[in-house]
Amino acid sequence: MRRIRNQIFQTLSSGPVSVYRLIDSQDASLPEFFELIEELEREGLIKVEDGKVSLTEEGRKYISELGAVNIDVRCKSCDGTGYSIAKDFEEILQKYKEIAKDRPETSEVFDQGFISPEGVIKRVEFIYERGDLLNAEMFVVGDDDLLSIASALTEMPKRISVIDADERLIDFINRVADEYSLPVTAEVCDVQDELPEKFKGKFDLFVTDPVETLPGLRLFLSRGVSALKGEGCAGYFGITTLEASRKKWYEIQKMILDMGFVITDLRRKFNVYPEDEKNFFRFQEKLPVVKKFGAKIDYNFYTSTLYRIEAVRKPEPVVKGRMVINEAVYKDEESWATPY
Amino acid sequence: MRRIRNQIFQTLSSGPVSVYRLIDSQDASLPEFFELIEELEREGLIKVEDGKVSLTEEGRKYISELGAVNIDVRCKSCDGTGYSIAKDFEEILQKYKEIAKDRPETSEVFDQGFISPEGVIKRVEFIYERGDLLNAEMFVVGDDDLLSIASALTEMPKRISVIDADERLIDFINRVADEYSLPVTAEVCDVQDELPEKFKGKFDLFVTDPVETLPGLRLFLSRGVSALKGEGCAGYFGITTLEASRKKWYEIQKMILDMGFVITDLRRKFNVYPEDEKNFFRFQEKLPVVKKFGAKIDYNFYTSTLYRIEAVRKPEPVVKGRMVINEAVYKDEESWATPY
Repeated sequence: MRRIRNQIFQTLSSGPVSVYRLIDSQDASLPEFFELIEELEREGLIKVEDGKVSLTEEGRKYISELGAVNIDVRCKSCDGTGYSIAKDFEEILQKYKEIAKDRPETSEVFDQGFISPEGVIKRVEFIYERGDLLNAEMFVVGDDDLLSIASALTEMPKRISVIDADERLIDFINRVADEYSLPVTAEVCDVQDELPEKFKGKFDLFVTDPVETLPGLRLFLSRGVSALKGEGCAGYFGITTLEASRKKWYEIQKMILDMGFVITDLRRKFNVYPEDEKNFFRFQEKLPVVKKFGAKIDYNFYTSTLYRIEAVRKPEPVVKGRMVINEAVYKDEESWATPY
Repeated sequence: MRRIRNQIFQTLSSGPVSVYRLIDSQDASLPEFFELIEELEREGLIKVEDGKVSLTEEGRKYISELGAVNIDVRCKSCDGTGYSIAKDFEEILQKYKEIAKDRPETSEVFDQGFISPEGVIKRVEFIYERGDLLNAEMFVVGDDDLLSIASALTEMPKRISVIDADERLIDFINRVADEYSLPVTAEVCDVQDELPEKFKGKFDLFVTDPVETLPGLRLFLSRGVSALKGEGCAGYFGITTLEASRKKWYEIQKMILDMGFVITDLRRKFNVYPEDEKNFFRFQEKLPVVKKFGAKIDYNFYTSTLYRIEAVRKPEPVVKGRMVINEAVYKDEESWATPY
């Protein structure tokens, strides 16, 4: 319930609210919420009077140590069915853009590609809204998107570890972390090998953008899952519908449930991979989709669906130990936007 | 692929577009999309030149028979991560509101409750965007929301059948259908009984808002599933996180996969149940949540997540034959917003 506590304190940080308003700002069921409220009362952090919940002196101290802030990240124009860049995140976006200008170009060897800066910030906002960001130990498997940097710029996570196969990217992230004093450490790690012991069972959440073949998905998600502490921990990742048909999604979802996770969110077209001089459209003449239609890309058609999964029991990766990557991990008969 | 065809023709109805723009307006994977485009060329409905897709004379005829129109339902303020009421749907909303004014009050006997008019229209927009609305045979299991009416007002579905246990609601829907000449028929049907033969395997999609106990979910979803024609057909339903914990969601998702469906969308807080003189907040003194907190409801906290599921093989309901409803179908230890 770490993240539900976070959601409650994030909301209370801007002042007392009605209990029903508070219910709406968190993700637990009513009995779980009620139990938690009683617990927080017993701990002397909050008080409930006439249906209003407020912080005690103790609670205010607790919040300022936690650094909880209340930010409304939902879009005002569509009844909150979407996410906009909140005022508090606008500054993060600008800083992130400034930093990302110097990112290394994507490498086709590693099937890299990155989402738009606005998309990165929206992902971070979404993680924040779920209560997963605050005070978190985060694990990022492959970080073409520099999500580690964007997350750290909010000053909310406790620490972020990044693994990636690309030394250029690792160096870049470590350099930025150093320069901006961010709690991010990155290291070259071969996803084919079992996760080093120091990462196993140590994190609250993982984030990744897996390659979209079934062996690739099994491998990337398993490494993320291995890094989690236990029940209640979460995973975030993007998958397209373009290179993953509904039948493949079906296999992915079976795998997710088998590993002990429930899918809590599936947001279609949440992120777009923009045409950018450093992105993978540079080698578009190698993409099957371009060859098949014989036409240059003139529209940002490559979008991905954001998955959030949450462990309902001790998470169990499907891949343990070493798994050798061959071409089948990067490419299958659906990967038409992957360079051949 | 009926709905993917619909998506393509909906987009083409407003003029020729680049093939990449067209890819972005549909939900299939790239190989499926490519195959379909070749099929439509062979059928003489479209032509592809220099990466631009346009309609042939034949195609224009086909579209006008189909009644396909291109409406952008995505919110402009948040990069389309949310849904706004599009101009074309504004008129539907007004008509729907006018009609819904005379709806019967919700009955606590049937655990009724309805979502906001704007929410109903957004659901319809979402179904439209998926290509599921156009020319569809729709099945609605329980229609407190009057979604059948809102859908029919778009003039897109071919026919809509509604079953509900509440005679007042059935009479109201049939009266409106008659007055406005809508292709909607409603009849009293006991969800405890097996679906009448005439409904079995006859529809492209079903819509329902199940009661949130596991037996209730099994029952409502099975009746919806029994009504579907086969692979590619879809189901839409709302579930809260308030009366259904992540553990219950886990069981629901296992059931969905077992029935042969993949979850394609999970939109948190897509719909809100507003405080309204005819809605279930009327009997709020009977809701456990109100008793527990000892405070009257002063905030629209009751929201639901929209699920869309799609059959990846012949759908198989988990409940066949008669299943008797006892109190356990309406209430369990999590149903704190259900009158006791």
